[in-house]
Amino acid sequence: MPKISQKGQQMPQSPIRKLVPYAETAKKEGVKVYHLNIGQPDIETPEVALKAIHNYDEKVVEYSHSAGILSYREKLAQYYKKNNIHVSSEDIIVGAGASEAILFAMNTCLDQGDEMIIPEPFYANYNGFAINAGVKVVPIPSSIEDGFALPPISDFEKMITPKTKAIMICNPNNPTGYLYSREELESLRELVLKHDLYLLADEVYREFTYDGHKHTSIMELDGLDQHAIMIDSVSKRYSACGIRIGCMVSRNREVMATALKFAQARLSPPSLGQVAAEAALDTPDEYFTTVIQEYYNRRNVVTKAINNMEGAFCPVPKGAFYVQPRLPIDDADRFCQWLLEDFRHNKQTVMLAPATGFYSTPGSGKQEVRISYVLNVDDLKHAMEVLEHALKAYPGRTNS
Amino acid sequence: MPKISQKGQQMPQSPIRKLVPYAETAKKEGVKVYHLNIGQPDIETPEVALKAIHNYDEKVVEYSHSAGILSYREKLAQYYKKNNIHVSSEDIIVGAGASEAILFAMNTCLDQGDEMIIPEPFYANYNGFAINAGVKVVPIPSSIEDGFALPPISDFEKMITPKTKAIMICNPNNPTGYLYSREELESLRELVLKHDLYLLADEVYREFTYDGHKHTSIMELDGLDQHAIMIDSVSKRYSACGIRIGCMVSRNREVMATALKFAQARLSPPSLGQVAAEAALDTPDEYFTTVIQEYYNRRNVVTKAINNMEGAFCPVPKGAFYVQPRLPIDDADRFCQWLLEDFRHNKQTVMLAPATGFYSTPGSGKQEVRISYVLNVDDLKHAMEVLEHALKAYPGRTNS
Repeated sequence: MPKISQKGQQMPQSPIRKLVPYAETAKKEGVKVYHLNIGQPDIETPEVALKAIHNYDEKVVEYSHSAGILSYREKLAQYYKKNNIHVSSEDIIVGAGASEAILFAMNTCLDQGDEMIIPEPFYANYNGFAINAGVKVVPIPSSIEDGFALPPISDFEKMITPKTKAIMICNPNNPTGYLYSREELESLRELVLKHDLYLLADEVYREFTYDGHKHTSIMELDGLDQHAIMIDSVSKRYSACGIRIGCMVSRNREVMATALKFAQARLSPPSLGQVAAEAALDTPDEYFTTVIQEYYNRRNVVTKAINNMEGAFCPVPKGAFYVQPRLPIDDADRFCQWLLEDFRHNKQTVMLAPATGFYSTPGSGKQEVRISYVLNVDDLKHAMEVLEHALKAYPGRTNS
Repeated sequence: MPKISQKGQQMPQSPIRKLVPYAETAKKEGVKVYHLNIGQPDIETPEVALKAIHNYDEKVVEYSHSAGILSYREKLAQYYKKNNIHVSSEDIIVGAGASEAILFAMNTCLDQGDEMIIPEPFYANYNGFAINAGVKVVPIPSSIEDGFALPPISDFEKMITPKTKAIMICNPNNPTGYLYSREELESLRELVLKHDLYLLADEVYREFTYDGHKHTSIMELDGLDQHAIMIDSVSKRYSACGIRIGCMVSRNREVMATALKFAQARLSPPSLGQVAAEAALDTPDEYFTTVIQEYYNRRNVVTKAINNMEGAFCPVPKGAFYVQPRLPIDDADRFCQWLLEDFRHNKQTVMLAPATGFYSTPGSGKQEVRISYVLNVDDLKHAMEVLEHALKAYPGRTNS
């Protein structure tokens, strides 16, 4: 029997996936499971997008341009302009989700063995993409004490080697919800200019900011045209994860010409998804006002509830729809499995994501979990009640 | 300015892409260009598939299962059963086109520097996928004299090294249209068992066979459960290239579990495309009867016309919708560019794919072009007339 590649053996299995069978068993037993473990919003996809699908009137579903349908890219450039990001259709390559766009960017900028620095905790699938592209991820720990703010630039400096080619951030952050300030971004700007590195920013949660704070894109920073690569997706913005439409945006011509060769090899991004995504750009502003107000309420429910639980601490982040609290538990993986396997409160339990999967430093995140607030306020309140009871009953409860 | 990756620099640009600007200029000058250069069929997507899109009634376009919607995979398994391929939904991972499925397979089976043997000429994008995955392609030349049949197994044996991990074929073949016989496949079977290699087969043109010949899948061969990986796509079958739905099929559990980790990292294949693809499986048989008869007529028009041109030779292949003739020309790239830039016959010209892009042995294919018969019979007749005049007028005409 031929051998599996080493790369394939190294591919991590997400700690959330490992929990799925336990959740299924619980459901079969009639237990109500509150899913706070996923990034699939419950919000409806805007009607304009769904309507465009219903009215699709081509007779042949053809390949689109490898970089994406031109009219879509042009309209996307207009959307970016409204967000203070000045780019043209030529600075955009549409991918099958942010996932493909990240792979294009990694393959374009980094070779086998090259290093990419990422503040941790970070979105677990970056690890998978890095293994896919042969890239070594170098984590720089951020701290829950200051809400997972950008680690000191001196920490980055220490980790830069001749192999370092890029720094990657996610802003607003998944899994922490942290929104980087303009000052933090400016300090990263100095750093990448000084060391001549690429700066990748995953900005798929751009719209979801709270307490009057606004998102700043790396594309707004001066002098970064040759360095900045923004990753985007419509999945969260329009609650349309399944259409698989994201993009890679950069003003660096050579980067875009090279990424286009990777895009051409796979011919085309999904045509139907692009039709929906293009129409979605006409989503009325009220949609976002309502959605953001809803997420804001949810964030407050969750953070307030957790901070009232004994021994727990939850930063109140300004973006995305995630929080990453510290809980009085010995081991997040064990706790999350125990919730599904052994704990019931009025025939209910919760499914959380152990934060260990968001750290690449071994042993980190053992007291943290990620909570996606993708349930309505009432359900969230019930879920928090369940969590509170669970923390009291958990045999591996710690005193810290 | 940071450097582009070596991988990115090595990514080939398809020779067809290089010709696109010349075609655009010709069209602007009012010249009618017959496009025989592409794999985008002109046939209509089956109505059942389009209807499923129009009737899509979900309120949220959600991620699907990372391996693809279960009901789709189950129905796909039924389709395979009708084609004498006995697999279950668990042996299938749906990808964004065959392109993504090939990347999953390469990443699962081969590491950086590992070798994959492919008979040449082969589909140019295999080169791109190989660079993407860090895989070295080892070409084994097939010969136009015997219609691009499988090269002798002894030629394969000569190229096998400790780094060889897989053999890949495309059956029916793009770019040659060659349909491998069961005997040829059996000889490959012996070879991969002897050397413990993976056998990958891209079988996306399965339905398109002529002269009473039937396609044999590598999944039908005995004893290959641990070795055979089939790549498939609905793009050509249902003339729906833009939905980006393909898949990877294998009975090797470890291969599928590993490929699934790559699939999970990118979350989900396109949901809307899967809805169309699932519905397309109900396409009535008459659709294929009509389409295959149409392609058959086209193949006959093209091969007959070319074989009547002085100095030209065109094998008459039994599958797909491509032929790769040898023409009396000095350089296929130059000829194809000249057709678009300098040659006009009654204000018409043709766009062909230079075969050089389908060979990885330098200097090969200089007298060959690939013709996709994706135009109706009348247009094809006109196009062949234009080609005949062009060959007479071409300054680089050879006597061979």
